[in-house]
Amino acid sequence: MPETIPADSVGIVQPQKLHFDEPLQLVSGRVLEEYDLVFETYGELNADRSNALLICHALSGDHHAAGYHSMEDRKPGWWDVAIGPGKPFDTNRYFIVCPNNLGGCKGSTGPNSINPKTGKPWGADFPIVTVKDWVVSQARLADRLGIEQWAAVIGGSLGGMQVMQWAIDLPERLRHALVIAAAPKLSAQNIGFNEVARQAIMSDPDFHGGHYYAHGTIPRRGLMLARMLGHITYLSDEAMRAKFGRELREGKINFGFDVEFQVESYLRYQGKSFVERFDANTYLLMTKALDYFDPAAEYGDDLAAAFRRALADFLVVSFTSDWRFPPSRSEEIVRALVQADRNVSYTEIEATQGHDAFLLPIQAYLDTLYAYMKRV
Amino acid sequence: MPETIPADSVGIVQPQKLHFDEPLQLVSGRVLEEYDLVFETYGELNADRSNALLICHALSGDHHAAGYHSMEDRKPGWWDVAIGPGKPFDTNRYFIVCPNNLGGCKGSTGPNSINPKTGKPWGADFPIVTVKDWVVSQARLADRLGIEQWAAVIGGSLGGMQVMQWAIDLPERLRHALVIAAAPKLSAQNIGFNEVARQAIMSDPDFHGGHYYAHGTIPRRGLMLARMLGHITYLSDEAMRAKFGRELREGKINFGFDVEFQVESYLRYQGKSFVERFDANTYLLMTKALDYFDPAAEYGDDLAAAFRRALADFLVVSFTSDWRFPPSRSEEIVRALVQADRNVSYTEIEATQGHDAFLLPIQAYLDTLYAYMKRV
Repeated sequence: MPETIPADSVGIVQPQKLHFDEPLQLVSGRVLEEYDLVFETYGELNADRSNALLICHALSGDHHAAGYHSMEDRKPGWWDVAIGPGKPFDTNRYFIVCPNNLGGCKGSTGPNSINPKTGKPWGADFPIVTVKDWVVSQARLADRLGIEQWAAVIGGSLGGMQVMQWAIDLPERLRHALVIAAAPKLSAQNIGFNEVARQAIMSDPDFHGGHYYAHGTIPRRGLMLARMLGHITYLSDEAMRAKFGRELREGKINFGFDVEFQVESYLRYQGKSFVERFDANTYLLMTKALDYFDPAAEYGDDLAAAFRRALADFLVVSFTSDWRFPPSRSEEIVRALVQADRNVSYTEIEATQGHDAFLLPIQAYLDTLYAYMKRV
Repeated sequence: MPETIPADSVGIVQPQKLHFDEPLQLVSGRVLEEYDLVFETYGELNADRSNALLICHALSGDHHAAGYHSMEDRKPGWWDVAIGPGKPFDTNRYFIVCPNNLGGCKGSTGPNSINPKTGKPWGADFPIVTVKDWVVSQARLADRLGIEQWAAVIGGSLGGMQVMQWAIDLPERLRHALVIAAAPKLSAQNIGFNEVARQAIMSDPDFHGGHYYAHGTIPRRGLMLARMLGHITYLSDEAMRAKFGRELREGKINFGFDVEFQVESYLRYQGKSFVERFDANTYLLMTKALDYFDPAAEYGDDLAAAFRRALADFLVVSFTSDWRFPPSRSEEIVRALVQADRNVSYTEIEATQGHDAFLLPIQAYLDTLYAYMKRV
């Protein structure tokens, strides 16, 4: 909990919610008749509405990107290192919007929301949503906020995928696209890890085919396993070595199956605490959005052809030790942008922290964002 | 099923079993009063008993390393590519012994064996066994077979760890040590993956604290998840891309949670079939043996000091795309051997197949084994 709010914090923030009545035609063929989007904003929209930034969240993120909800909060929003007065996404200059995506579990309509047709939680009946669907829903949010064009759309990991889709699908509605620690589509290994996570959740007897709310259960074991596995893929081998090595929790081997190594303790803690704050059906939906993301597919599997639709300038950022979406995947994006004759800046940041680096206070990384944002 | 047995096969083989009455003092402090070891042998022991090779198996391996148990077998033993007449481990020259390790589930005493004290399966009461314990039990098997000194002790992955422990603990009993795709100890990332696998098994409601035999259940879901996860770590990202890419099983996205991508289908199949042939308690024990392996620990964390006890000549082999135990881990072994002034040959094999490469018919790899074995 912050005893005092730091001077470079956006301070105490309040989520807002908007209801949308216009049906949303989804890529899957299904229609979401109505929905809510919850979001936070930081900073002030200027008179000509030209200073708005859209922040897109990743798999387990939400709308709470910066600041605190109360003085009791132990931690600020998930991207507080980058958002605030004097920070790269400077709230003295920009009006910043961060929504919780459809299918989420933090206030936007998702599997744990009430299905108006049944009066019960959607559960497994909630439609699968894609990155393209999110872009449409975010564009409607922009309409309601009176934002015709974003100064920049920004995101890391799955958030970076939304940025690419924005640039391709709604090219006139953004001037800059910041794609961080992302990939143009998942590899078989990425999909494999997602599939293990899904199987962990879906095979949990407390999952009840996704209708666990009605059973008063939570697929705790499955969601915990999914998160433990996820965490390994977010950290580099190097970061885990530095953080845990082979340190033993009690200083000695006990020849049993309780926690022995520090890394086991860390993963179990991460898994357990995640269950308290995240919904398993949302986790399933987010992994599917990742698996399906493939913007080149509509353009004959030619990513450069997809990017020829874009009008924005791009910043692409990767991290040396990220093995989930390694620099080679960012380079695929950059190559296609160059082939498409788009303006693109690319930087590979030296970082030991793995995929997680995009959320961390790494000076060279924050300096890069800061420098790029001067152009915006 | 082989319509005819190939000429370079050891042909139809029969497992053998020996009972050991002498109590085995385990590293954990517990004692195994009596036990069985099941093993296979290929080739003939020569008159001066100098041509014996010991093959040590990896996590999910067993004593059936080569040949067929019957003409109905669909596949030969797990290292048939390397064992047989004219192959690197040439049954025309060598007498080859491959035991199933203690704690296993294929005939050697393990969790699914009857505990003589209770008349019921050991289950979770089976003691945790370590690589050091296996070496002692394998040495007793050598005694019974009249083998004073192995011409070579050979193994890949967890098998390679047994080879190193043999060379350190019983230096006079082997002339050559072949350490393939191994590491001197697990990294935090390796332990992390093992811990997720263990949690998957132990949190399965059908696990019943390891006493599932008594409940007539099998922790299928957990063991399936463990194996799916394992498989991802055995394959390289490159191999998965080549094998599956983002191929869709039905040629199109179905917007559901059934199998869609080929890689999902493959992993589910691997997971399900593993459950039919492997025991979950054994899987737990094998992962613990991996986690605990650290031969330098007894020598002040100085691997070179540990290897100074060794008398054998070493061959160390790694594979370029192995990210479970990458070449850098083999190089740690080689560096310590050089510091200890031991004879060591090292080769890094160009291979796209990941950790699995050590089981596969890769010509440069088999040629390396073949060439080295000429010295033995």
